[in-house]
Amino acid sequence: MLISSGNRESIDDATVMNLVLLEDDDFIDDNHVRLGGRRFDHITTLLAKETGDSLRIGRVNGLMGQGVIESIDSAALTLAIQLDQSPPPPLPVTLILALPRPKMLRRILRCVSSMGVKSLYLINSYRVDKSYWSSPLLQPEKIREQLCLGLEQGRDTLLPQVHLCPRFRPFTEDDLPGISSSTTNLVAHPEDGSVFPCQPLVPACLAIGPEGGFIPYEIDRLKEVNFIPVRLGERILGVETAVPALLSPFVAGIS
Amino acid sequence: MLISSGNRESIDDATVMNLVLLEDDDFIDDNHVRLGGRRFDHITTLLAKETGDSLRIGRVNGLMGQGVIESIDSAALTLAIQLDQSPPPPLPVTLILALPRPKMLRRILRCVSSMGVKSLYLINSYRVDKSYWSSPLLQPEKIREQLCLGLEQGRDTLLPQVHLCPRFRPFTEDDLPGISSSTTNLVAHPEDGSVFPCQPLVPACLAIGPEGGFIPYEIDRLKEVNFIPVRLGERILGVETAVPALLSPFVAGIS
Repeated sequence: MLISSGNRESIDDATVMNLVLLEDDDFIDDNHVRLGGRRFDHITTLLAKETGDSLRIGRVNGLMGQGVIESIDSAALTLAIQLDQSPPPPLPVTLILALPRPKMLRRILRCVSSMGVKSLYLINSYRVDKSYWSSPLLQPEKIREQLCLGLEQGRDTLLPQVHLCPRFRPFTEDDLPGISSSTTNLVAHPEDGSVFPCQPLVPACLAIGPEGGFIPYEIDRLKEVNFIPVRLGERILGVETAVPALLSPFVAGIS
Repeated sequence: MLISSGNRESIDDATVMNLVLLEDDDFIDDNHVRLGGRRFDHITTLLAKETGDSLRIGRVNGLMGQGVIESIDSAALTLAIQLDQSPPPPLPVTLILALPRPKMLRRILRCVSSMGVKSLYLINSYRVDKSYWSSPLLQPEKIREQLCLGLEQGRDTLLPQVHLCPRFRPFTEDDLPGISSSTTNLVAHPEDGSVFPCQPLVPACLAIGPEGGFIPYEIDRLKEVNFIPVRLGERILGVETAVPALLSPFVAGIS
């Protein structure tokens, strides 16, 4: 999957298609799919694949395997496919994240999806601007699009479940106890958390606040439902850095 | 440092100014600085600070401490400062990174700087597009700007050293042996690396390839100078996710 020099600039916000994700609509029969649009462009132009070449593929929420290009016309290509491999095991972490700015949200959704998180709660917090909740990027199809890009990057097929929780208190009182009753529960709290465990116990729930952090009231509510404040080093990380950095020990733990 | 709702959207690519970084030019005398421009706007508008309020400050490559706003006029403010705290210890990792696409480079420089890396080599690789090396973002003052944003985010003062190495082979043959002679040397290699150590020995050198990874020739050259291929989990991470995720175990190790 060598990417030819000179074409890279055309990948916009760039995830790499390390796996071609197949949707139900793509199937001609059990062994053939027809792909147009973005995937066609990516495969024929960026990856410069030709008839007879093979590609790593996976069906959304299904198996992974190989596809061989049978034919290419001007706007679509046909693959003969074999789906016989399980996707990688989910990362055993439920991520609870204060809704990021829309501009960051797309990248964070891709990041989280590429790292194998399967359950994401986007929650409100005092420092989440109310306007973020009306972003068009929160439409289910927009969220799904970013999650799929993350799956293609990470080589996975299992779509994460994303839950929107625009009210902090009802979330912590009504939903969170059920979500976190049998997990290790950690909340990132750079100001005075204890040291982040090197090999955290799983399954886990990990809560990450907005830029500026959760306010003391919110930390107290989370402590009441058994979340332990933790910090990763002395420095204060931005959300886009904190998310992969805090998920990393869980990935390492199951390697 | 509560950030008022409604102003957040105006922070562009957003790092948070958790520390106001002082330049030599800002000093009126040993105990006073005058700040205009971006820092003035950030402090007066975004942080909504007023005369008498205090701020966490730090001098580039110097000490950290507190500043109290003495006066504010239309375009600048004066701080009475006290610099009496050491910055946090450097992350004991030299990062060797295949030059990312310019669009990503700014975010990665901020990320690396906010995590405490003090030595960064941006190197060439087969999959680095040649055009990236002529990006205006590689001008020293542009690089410095992003590094400073990272220091402000992470609350640190020590500017990272960034080295541009546009030729892979001379870098690995002439420079790398000296850089990595007394360190733990790891190269990220998702395809067939061994498991990333949970508590890696430091000081360390960590090499991260471009999107698509180092080519086998490059991995072989790195192995020749004692770099061990490692992977973090089964999934393939994009560079923007891989950098914080792979630096994270080092942060955890020194917590």
